[in-house]
Amino acid sequence: MIFVKKIMNSALKEIISKVIRVNPPELEEIGKFFSRQSLSKGEFLLKEGNFCSHLYFIEKGCLRLFYIDSKGREFTRFMAFENTFLSSMTAFISREPSTEYIQAMENSILYSIGYDDFLELRSSFPSGNYFYIYILEYGVTVITARLNNILTKSASERYRQLLFNNPEIIQRLSNNDLATYLNISPETLSRLKSNLSS
Amino acid sequence: MIFVKKIMNSALKEIISKVIRVNPPELEEIGKFFSRQSLSKGEFLLKEGNFCSHLYFIEKGCLRLFYIDSKGREFTRFMAFENTFLSSMTAFISREPSTEYIQAMENSILYSIGYDDFLELRSSFPSGNYFYIYILEYGVTVITARLNNILTKSASERYRQLLFNNPEIIQRLSNNDLATYLNISPETLSRLKSNLSS
Repeated sequence: MIFVKKIMNSALKEIISKVIRVNPPELEEIGKFFSRQSLSKGEFLLKEGNFCSHLYFIEKGCLRLFYIDSKGREFTRFMAFENTFLSSMTAFISREPSTEYIQAMENSILYSIGYDDFLELRSSFPSGNYFYIYILEYGVTVITARLNNILTKSASERYRQLLFNNPEIIQRLSNNDLATYLNISPETLSRLKSNLSS
Repeated sequence: MIFVKKIMNSALKEIISKVIRVNPPELEEIGKFFSRQSLSKGEFLLKEGNFCSHLYFIEKGCLRLFYIDSKGREFTRFMAFENTFLSSMTAFISREPSTEYIQAMENSILYSIGYDDFLELRSSFPSGNYFYIYILEYGVTVITARLNNILTKSASERYRQLLFNNPEIIQRLSNNDLATYLNISPETLSRLKSNLSS
């Protein structure tokens, strides 16, 4: 994991400017709270049992949040791509050890902000809490969509939906990773792929 | 659905006092934003396709949030009991039509606040946004726990977990409702119940 200098990228700036009212000097000040870091494919940002002390913004790459059960089976809760925030939110909120893992699926570049710095950011800027509200609203929305998807859609419907909405994800992920994302076996995924291409 | 006078119950007052810094006169003012209403068993608070314009707090009773798929099958996303907030949060946030239903599973008593009133409450009190942050953090936590439960636990593990953590729920719900809550068939539930009692 390599940390470099504290300069926000333009996508992060744009999102913050949309979410809270800040002038350019304030935006520069906010930038100082973030650290830019690179992460190699396969590297972990967080492991089960550790404290989740940071919130991340993805400039480039893909990260997977997943659980491992007592039998060693992996279950993907979420995958996050460019220009989105991510964290193990429940652990970040509760300050209790995480029940999940976060791992880079590709070489990735992230911006991170620590828990205490985030509290300071929220209290230092009049509209700082709106930034946190944006992240929480985004969290509620994507987790609910994932739950809806897992509860109500069949394997075939989940694959077709992804093919329609995010074909890029299908190109970027290995068959195994894509299968865990869809919560199906690699064999079912191969069958779905060949059925749709024939 | 019967609306009665605007007086907050003590549990709601206690939660608000814990979450945001308010003095007693301010707490009385906040109470004026809420309406108390009763709902009969089976009655709907929200249907798919409608706008979700309120946030609710349950004084008494139980409400179920569920989806119905194109084949008419019901999938329970969440069940909420006394002293918790609930809403179709994604629809409440996005101001787009809801994709889910909210129905009373028992005769229930609720406090509700409309979307515009909630915005006014948040802007009228210096710490008003912390109230919304509390609700969103609660939302992220319970939805993530539900997703974790559905992804990683078997039918038998889900039933045992409920029996251990919330035995009251098993008493209160009918077998059919309990089965949808556990995301299993009524037959599987009957088998689990008889296996554990034998």
